[in-house]
Amino acid sequence: MSPAADSPAAVVLLSGGLDSATVMACARRDGYRCHALSFDYGQRHDAELRAAEEIARDQAAVEHRTVRVDLGSLGGSALTDAAVAVPETPGEGIPVTYVPARNSVFLAVAMGWAEILDARAIYLGVNAVDYSGYPDCRPEFISAFQNLATVATAQGLEGRAPVIQAPLIDLPKADIIRLGTSLGVDYALTVSCYQADDDGRACGVCDACRFRRRGFEEAEVADPTRYR
Amino acid sequence: MSPAADSPAAVVLLSGGLDSATVMACARRDGYRCHALSFDYGQRHDAELRAAEEIARDQAAVEHRTVRVDLGSLGGSALTDAAVAVPETPGEGIPVTYVPARNSVFLAVAMGWAEILDARAIYLGVNAVDYSGYPDCRPEFISAFQNLATVATAQGLEGRAPVIQAPLIDLPKADIIRLGTSLGVDYALTVSCYQADDDGRACGVCDACRFRRRGFEEAEVADPTRYR
Repeated sequence: MSPAADSPAAVVLLSGGLDSATVMACARRDGYRCHALSFDYGQRHDAELRAAEEIARDQAAVEHRTVRVDLGSLGGSALTDAAVAVPETPGEGIPVTYVPARNSVFLAVAMGWAEILDARAIYLGVNAVDYSGYPDCRPEFISAFQNLATVATAQGLEGRAPVIQAPLIDLPKADIIRLGTSLGVDYALTVSCYQADDDGRACGVCDACRFRRRGFEEAEVADPTRYR
Repeated sequence: MSPAADSPAAVVLLSGGLDSATVMACARRDGYRCHALSFDYGQRHDAELRAAEEIARDQAAVEHRTVRVDLGSLGGSALTDAAVAVPETPGEGIPVTYVPARNSVFLAVAMGWAEILDARAIYLGVNAVDYSGYPDCRPEFISAFQNLATVATAQGLEGRAPVIQAPLIDLPKADIIRLGTSLGVDYALTVSCYQADDDGRACGVCDACRFRRRGFEEAEVADPTRYR
């Protein structure tokens, strides 16, 4: 069931991955009309952007926009810099797939769009459990950004700052998959792999693939991921 | 005199306007090697980006990068949306030239670059006096972003968050011009006009032109602006 035409709007950060597809389903469950926002930030493959488009259509988003932000031109991450290899064994500390300040940039753009739409919420799929050690996937980060939202825009100054919703932040991957399955998410459309091929098929060995595969196993849900 | 090669690095947001050129001179005065950062965000003209390049060269920046952030695709501002006219008479409240969350987006990208460079500071030329009513030009905004910087990146978690420096925030335009003049800023290189032509010549009638012209008059500094 889709939210009514007079429902409040939410901006949903949609990467094309498992978590963000689940988050969009949460926003619908919460009664929002979803305006899906993806980023072309110099990531190595377009498969996830195509996946985002399909997920937005499948979940009846009001619209889906992709904003180009050329973070790759600053370098420093395996996700955007061809000179840095994606690791295939788990490491210690913050991994090379970390893109500095990525969620801050994404939320800032979302905050701007929320003001234009007068959206009441911004949903994002950060997760502090299986989070690979990214600083901007923690509750402290969400809280600091919520505080910023109250002073950074005209909407915020009017007391109408969008609420930053991170409904997956405390959930293990298996619980995310159970939640999304109960909300009708079609995980076959999602791409999590850091190095998916042009057809969206996963490598099966990077951090993201490992967390995802184990999540389906633990949730006892059939894994629809296409591996190459 | 340029800072020594072992001086700390700063990221300087350089729009190509009068304020940001002054801020870069402040960063040099404070002993930083400057990494200049400009944005191609769908603003209507390229004159200010060319001006930024010349200012960075004139002030011996270590490097100058321009990051594309396609804010124009979200609409909502006279600066990025061709359907919204730039006003030529002062209005009430927040003007249509306001780009929602622009400084949040710029600072977020700067924060990511600061982490890659291990920069100790981020300089930006916001100003709360002649600020045309933009929410993200106020001290409360800078303070909230500083707080975000302590939790959003690995650098922040290590207690090495860059200090957000907004040295012009309390200065009237005339004082900014006096300060920059004392620091050797070549204002002939700067472009402030919201609707400069391809050669960087100013309209003389928009808000930005009016504040600038009055600033030179009050500072009793010869105005090098090229009007069309």
